[in-house]
Amino acid sequence: MPNWLLPEHIADVLPSEARKIEELRRLMLDNFRRYGYELVMPPLLEYVESLMTGAGQDVELRTFKLVDQISGRMLGLRADMTTQVARIDAHLLNRHSVTRLCYAGSVLHTRPSGLHTTREPLQIGAEIYGHAGLEADAEIQELALASLALANFTDVRLDLSHVGVLRAIIAECPQASKDEAALSTLLRGKDVPGLEVLTENYSPVVRDALRALPNLYGDVEVLKKARQVLPDVPGVAKALAELAALAGSAIGRAEVAIDLADLRGYQYESGAMFALYVPGLPNAVARGGRYDHVGEAFGRARPATGFSMDLRELARLLPTAERKHSIRAPWGNAPELKEKIAALRKAGEVVIQSLPGHSEEQDEFECDRALVLDDSGSNWILKNLG
Amino acid sequence: MPNWLLPEHIADVLPSEARKIEELRRLMLDNFRRYGYELVMPPLLEYVESLMTGAGQDVELRTFKLVDQISGRMLGLRADMTTQVARIDAHLLNRHSVTRLCYAGSVLHTRPSGLHTTREPLQIGAEIYGHAGLEADAEIQELALASLALANFTDVRLDLSHVGVLRAIIAECPQASKDEAALSTLLRGKDVPGLEVLTENYSPVVRDALRALPNLYGDVEVLKKARQVLPDVPGVAKALAELAALAGSAIGRAEVAIDLADLRGYQYESGAMFALYVPGLPNAVARGGRYDHVGEAFGRARPATGFSMDLRELARLLPTAERKHSIRAPWGNAPELKEKIAALRKAGEVVIQSLPGHSEEQDEFECDRALVLDDSGSNWILKNLG
Repeated sequence: MPNWLLPEHIADVLPSEARKIEELRRLMLDNFRRYGYELVMPPLLEYVESLMTGAGQDVELRTFKLVDQISGRMLGLRADMTTQVARIDAHLLNRHSVTRLCYAGSVLHTRPSGLHTTREPLQIGAEIYGHAGLEADAEIQELALASLALANFTDVRLDLSHVGVLRAIIAECPQASKDEAALSTLLRGKDVPGLEVLTENYSPVVRDALRALPNLYGDVEVLKKARQVLPDVPGVAKALAELAALAGSAIGRAEVAIDLADLRGYQYESGAMFALYVPGLPNAVARGGRYDHVGEAFGRARPATGFSMDLRELARLLPTAERKHSIRAPWGNAPELKEKIAALRKAGEVVIQSLPGHSEEQDEFECDRALVLDDSGSNWILKNLG
Repeated sequence: MPNWLLPEHIADVLPSEARKIEELRRLMLDNFRRYGYELVMPPLLEYVESLMTGAGQDVELRTFKLVDQISGRMLGLRADMTTQVARIDAHLLNRHSVTRLCYAGSVLHTRPSGLHTTREPLQIGAEIYGHAGLEADAEIQELALASLALANFTDVRLDLSHVGVLRAIIAECPQASKDEAALSTLLRGKDVPGLEVLTENYSPVVRDALRALPNLYGDVEVLKKARQVLPDVPGVAKALAELAALAGSAIGRAEVAIDLADLRGYQYESGAMFALYVPGLPNAVARGGRYDHVGEAFGRARPATGFSMDLRELARLLPTAERKHSIRAPWGNAPELKEKIAALRKAGEVVIQSLPGHSEEQDEFECDRALVLDDSGSNWILKNLG
């Protein structure tokens, strides 16, 4: 096997794509900062126990593991950064006030999550800790939408859901509570026949409500219908009111859809959840939601809500950046030439010195000007190239 | 063991430090770009065979290895990015012209290289492929020095060395050629007694030259002395001439030192090598040099020269960035308030909306202004905070 071959679902990022990713990364991080989010950089590897804390079983299977030569203990390569950032909030910063944190870094997966998915996503995201109110959810949702808008994604669909709906319904029926995991799986898959079998012996109110959930998707009108067909218990009413408020705050920024059976992340989420979709990609480009118990295992149960996205996937959707106009300069050590080149670079220009015997351009830079000596032979001037 | 504990020599980067690293990263990458270097992003893991290609045994020991669940083959986490970038030049880009590439990314080491060294350096660097002449070495050296100067490192020492000196000397003596590895190790350690024992039966010229090398360090005058005491063979003369030229091109940018026994990287370097030192750190902050054969194993022997540094270590030497002045805004959904906040953020301001019940500041941002309603109660204005 040739030694330049890469493992499946692992790829190099070449210049034009790397430039897009880098620009998108800066755009997002700068925007997070303008909202008051502080950047943190958790490590690529940790003890597996820390990485698995509060994470679902899917994360466990997706995490590469290896032995630490120093401690002899098992290390994991992070498959997701949200737990790490929660650990930083809970243990390292240990603030009592609201804390806004953001991050950007590679994560690794043992297996790709889809047919054409990379095993090395570049995860970027933001989190608020310390505020249980819906205002934090609204800010995170706004930040996600504003960040996509900055990157010229204007045609965005926002899918809203809420784990509180299912939790409140099954709390009404002991049998349903026992089947919680199975129910969330069936609902996620919109498996109506399976749901009918499982709910057969539930109390009629709970059975009817659960069977209604897979059909409760569509625009915000769904919330009205939900109020009619779902049991009138405080948990359901609160969740539906929160969804209505979040849907309202997204008006003008995204097309809003409600899907009460979309329970991805049900095991670790604790409130409203959202997913953002853009044309050209069947999967969500961003996912977010509330997961208040995430810091518990690190000794500090702080309310938490946040979102994350994969910069690599997002960058692929953007048009290729135009080749950067640049200046070709000859090789030479003459102080005047060196100074002129330094001044141009200081002014932000790309100046490529041709190495003797080579004058070709590089892929990413199109030399539209050349630094040449004027007729007097003593001044360096810029000449336009045809 | 508490689950928030990190492995030894692995650490989180908290906001103020993360900000410094991020700013330094952008400063460096932007400067590389102004010199015409294109950014590439090689993957965090590859088949071990690819990562080990052309690398020394030290890289092999420093590389974390794990099994790929998809192929069943052994993967390695990159411990160094230069081989990866050479693979990209050789195989993926496959250009005939000069190619300038740069990169920035985390690398992982099984063991730290020093007592207080991280196992997760953030490696940043630049490489030129396709030009065998000294001009490429000079450009790389200038780029490294200019990048440090941009980050306000002005008191820099440049240490120069050249593998051609030792290679040319031992080529004169079959016994010395056999002992090449041992000789380079003894010279690196300036082990004079060991050197005397090993060279005892070499031809007198070679023996005297090898014994002289550990003393050939100091300012550029060392090159004159080297011409006197080292054998007058073309290889030695060429290496010394190259060092003189590189020393000359650094005048005014760094204090230059020559150390002909500094043979770190001897196994894979092929020409002039340099190391940069700044006050406050005993280890080199940047290392570079020529390693023409690096692409060979990928099927394309292109001349190559480059340098790299660890952004984390470098950032630690910089003063803590001042807290960013920012604006505190109340929570609210009033369109006028939302618009005012959006306009301020668009102008580059950090605006932190206080979540109900919380008004404390975050560590990184000092709210020196607040967005408040004026006396008429209809206009949002900025008020200075004492």
